[in-house]
Amino acid sequence: MAEYKVPLADMDFLLFEVFKADDIWQKLPKLAEQVDKDTAQAILQECAKIAEQEVAPIARQGDETGVRYDAGKVITAPGYKEAFNTYVEGGWPALGGDVDYGGMGMPKMLTAMHEEMLCSADISFALYPSLTAGAALSLAKHGSEALKEKYLTKMYSGQWAASMCLTEAHSGSDLGIIRTKAVANDDGSYDISGNKIFITGGEHDLTENIIHLVLAKLPDAPAGPRGISLFLVPKFKVNDDGSLAESNNVSCGSIEHKMGIHASATCVMNFDGAQGYLIGELNKGLACMFTMMNFERIGVGIQGLGAAVKSYQNALEYAKDRQQGRALTGAKSPKQTADSIMVHGDVRRMLLNMKALNEGSRALSTYISMQLDYATYAEGEEQAKGETLSALLTPIAKAFFTDLGFENTVTGQQVFGGHGYIREWGQEQLVRDARITQIYEGTNGIQAMDLLLRKVAGSKGAMFTTFYNEVVEFIESVEHQDSMQEFVKPLSDALEDLNDLTLELLSKAQDNIDELGVSANDYLHVFGYTAMAFVWAKMAQVVLASEQISEEFYQSKLHTARYFFKRLLPRRISLIALARSGADSVFDISDELF
Amino acid sequence: MAEYKVPLADMDFLLFEVFKADDIWQKLPKLAEQVDKDTAQAILQECAKIAEQEVAPIARQGDETGVRYDAGKVITAPGYKEAFNTYVEGGWPALGGDVDYGGMGMPKMLTAMHEEMLCSADISFALYPSLTAGAALSLAKHGSEALKEKYLTKMYSGQWAASMCLTEAHSGSDLGIIRTKAVANDDGSYDISGNKIFITGGEHDLTENIIHLVLAKLPDAPAGPRGISLFLVPKFKVNDDGSLAESNNVSCGSIEHKMGIHASATCVMNFDGAQGYLIGELNKGLACMFTMMNFERIGVGIQGLGAAVKSYQNALEYAKDRQQGRALTGAKSPKQTADSIMVHGDVRRMLLNMKALNEGSRALSTYISMQLDYATYAEGEEQAKGETLSALLTPIAKAFFTDLGFENTVTGQQVFGGHGYIREWGQEQLVRDARITQIYEGTNGIQAMDLLLRKVAGSKGAMFTTFYNEVVEFIESVEHQDSMQEFVKPLSDALEDLNDLTLELLSKAQDNIDELGVSANDYLHVFGYTAMAFVWAKMAQVVLASEQISEEFYQSKLHTARYFFKRLLPRRISLIALARSGADSVFDISDELF
Repeated sequence: MAEYKVPLADMDFLLFEVFKADDIWQKLPKLAEQVDKDTAQAILQECAKIAEQEVAPIARQGDETGVRYDAGKVITAPGYKEAFNTYVEGGWPALGGDVDYGGMGMPKMLTAMHEEMLCSADISFALYPSLTAGAALSLAKHGSEALKEKYLTKMYSGQWAASMCLTEAHSGSDLGIIRTKAVANDDGSYDISGNKIFITGGEHDLTENIIHLVLAKLPDAPAGPRGISLFLVPKFKVNDDGSLAESNNVSCGSIEHKMGIHASATCVMNFDGAQGYLIGELNKGLACMFTMMNFERIGVGIQGLGAAVKSYQNALEYAKDRQQGRALTGAKSPKQTADSIMVHGDVRRMLLNMKALNEGSRALSTYISMQLDYATYAEGEEQAKGETLSALLTPIAKAFFTDLGFENTVTGQQVFGGHGYIREWGQEQLVRDARITQIYEGTNGIQAMDLLLRKVAGSKGAMFTTFYNEVVEFIESVEHQDSMQEFVKPLSDALEDLNDLTLELLSKAQDNIDELGVSANDYLHVFGYTAMAFVWAKMAQVVLASEQISEEFYQSKLHTARYFFKRLLPRRISLIALARSGADSVFDISDELF
Repeated sequence: MAEYKVPLADMDFLLFEVFKADDIWQKLPKLAEQVDKDTAQAILQECAKIAEQEVAPIARQGDETGVRYDAGKVITAPGYKEAFNTYVEGGWPALGGDVDYGGMGMPKMLTAMHEEMLCSADISFALYPSLTAGAALSLAKHGSEALKEKYLTKMYSGQWAASMCLTEAHSGSDLGIIRTKAVANDDGSYDISGNKIFITGGEHDLTENIIHLVLAKLPDAPAGPRGISLFLVPKFKVNDDGSLAESNNVSCGSIEHKMGIHASATCVMNFDGAQGYLIGELNKGLACMFTMMNFERIGVGIQGLGAAVKSYQNALEYAKDRQQGRALTGAKSPKQTADSIMVHGDVRRMLLNMKALNEGSRALSTYISMQLDYATYAEGEEQAKGETLSALLTPIAKAFFTDLGFENTVTGQQVFGGHGYIREWGQEQLVRDARITQIYEGTNGIQAMDLLLRKVAGSKGAMFTTFYNEVVEFIESVEHQDSMQEFVKPLSDALEDLNDLTLELLSKAQDNIDELGVSANDYLHVFGYTAMAFVWAKMAQVVLASEQISEEFYQSKLHTARYFFKRLLPRRISLIALARSGADSVFDISDELF
């Protein structure tokens, strides 16, 4: 298996050539204080070392050993504790955190790349800090001063980890029907009782305490999602001086045996009158949770990308080494018994699919992260636009990147032939690990509904128009350039088709709302390929304008852009046909006839 | 998890209503002696019992336990020996065998359905009899009288199993470079020496002997594929009276740890001067092997279908039970806290994709099997057409059914949400098991090359024309029927587009043969969807002409046909665009730029 190498050159290209992150950061006062180009590059380089040298090497063994459950305790796989300690010593848990409580306040554009590296190295490992960062985000935004002083600081320092406790056995996608109860105590705290399942990092041996953010309902709360509150429930209670007190009636009942991410602890958590503290307002728990959702969902999208990047690197090394058969045009290496399989058009197709989709996903992820940074740190119109675009594109980041990520891990496995099916090569692990990203944090079907129903239709098309204008503006800025014609024309076609499709679906929905539910998945993918064409055209433009255009990196980028427009963007055509084919064939058949 | 139920009604519909198997059998003397409708129905019903009651129940445990290697021995998972014995006692190993040596001589149309049942129940189990049946086919066709008397009879009786030993570590897709050596002995036998990998059922404890069919080269053999011979190498030598003699210097060095099919033994086999017997002529080994390839490759396609059928049954049961959220059009079950997820358009879409693709694959598999039966049992023009169509469509059966099968297992897992990722539900096992079918017995990329280069281009389009005419004939026979218009028009469009694409690619290939290699995969899928539209239209026609049209089964079939034409056939549009996009974007980028 290839040794994982962080694609630092591509990250640098995206940040500083394509999206001019340094200019953006300078304009936004809160970011200008924390980060500039030199700092960012140093951070990425240091983080790359951790990912390549500390995390990547433990992934295979982690898959084989997995986490172990023993009488309420969860023992992580060999090497995880050491890698986690190194990660903490480097100060990485604070990377995106609030500076007022010890965070480093780095922009999402940077933390997203940090996440990608960790996930390429090992999704199982990455989940422990990732869940903690997500919980910290909610707490930082909605928690009281006291809670933040007491808990947030130690989450940033890496002393304590965190989990998000949402799902119950009967309540997954539909959180409105959770049963976990919260009863108010006289001292302002609450007694939390209930059972949660699928809790990532609910219990483990990496940290001395684990801070659970738990969704629960007060006895008199309104029914449905408007009666849900969010509570902070530590595994061990915490004294006023920050030292650990007694256990808090939180226990791990068992762990799940899963298809992949074996080294990530997926726990059944039992709360038996555990002491909890309200975060934000009563009955506003879902809103508090959704604060972190845009960040987290992009993060899950990036997990899919992470696995796919490693799969590509492995597959490329294998394809270059493996000698089998001859080129159709005649032997390329006649002195060897066979040519490298790189001579075969179908192998190149598989590798280029992976390359173009991975680099496109990274570019789009960086673009969305940039919008999230505008939403968080900018003001006025710029802030509003950032908020709109990041909210609109978040479900695409989650579902599109993970669908492509899974596809790419499967493709990378296929390049290996039979060896791709054998565990020791590590390639099949990536398929199993990536698969979960399409399911958790809201299934990709839910994401598609979020995009088309909540965002596009919910805003009566206004959110879509913001995106449309953004692309039109770009097209107008480059359409006079001869060298850009090969990209501008198909991008423009794709955008207009997406616009037409959007209008058609919104119109159909006035008669039958099911038209949206049936088309949502195809619509999301049409949107995804179009948005990806937008960032590929942006990248092509930067390359074409660059003085370094003849260098390998830039030539590779340009050829890959051409490949994307020729051989990936056309996927949208069938998807549009499907999205337009209507709800009748899906609903005219009664349940009994399935 | 749902209990697996064999789709007997659909099998009956295909055999006796759509393809009129009883008429065909009556016309072909060798088949007429063996089988009629009653016999066939009795066979399917008995086989269904084995699959449902004996094989399906051992699959989950087989996945958990897997096969165990202990000092050269391979111990199968709990229950496999018992299930295998029951299978043998039922006489099933003889099902498709040569009647002169104890076989039952059943047509492929029937054995294909038998294979589907076993694979839905458990691919791992199915592989043991399946490999034996494949080896028996080669032996029956090319072996000497003496070899057949001695070995074939015991393979049909189920006393002995068999394996196919092709792959070596450096030689997978490219068999021309194998190194296993055969040296002639004075007594007409050969000493076989070499190492084989990825040998399914190379060693196990199900039978007292295992008959290996081994590809090897004589010292003076021509280089490449034309120097390969096929040998029969038993694990234990066999005395003239049929009793077992001493061990034959064949040993299992280890077993692979794989992504799935854990209960199937995938062995490294070492031959150290083992005694072997030539099958067929010297240096014609590949041809002897390819005798069984059409049968086996359709069989692998059916493995993909098998897993997908079970995935559908599980997903449907789960979707009907699982209550989560509300229909977009308002609560459907207001007395429950939530509606069943069957109300969601996206869930219905996933289930109907599976249903339509599974039933379409089964129908196309039956059609191809029918052609194989014509090729085997008919004469003159009918035989020739059967041979052409079965050879042409075999790579489609293998690659298209397994790509769809894998897609459908992933879709079925997605319907389960988070539970689909948990091992105990069994749904993720189907994904892992199905994945191998896209890889072994010639990767799907190799199948695509076989279709477009060897078959379509190799026959200068003649083989394609045979298929084209077959569909045109059908279209002409139904195009006057009003009720068939919704199917005939899109089928006709699809066929003409496929024809145009074929001509375009063959023309381009005259300048650049790489155009075929690059387009092969997309071409195969365009062909697959078109061929599937052909059998779906045939099924629709039968339903529309049936007096039972108002019954549930027929209504379900008709709606599913409509769904296929509306929401699956349009996938071909993008695939055509990709297949037409040319080789330049794939080959203009040098290896260093990947």
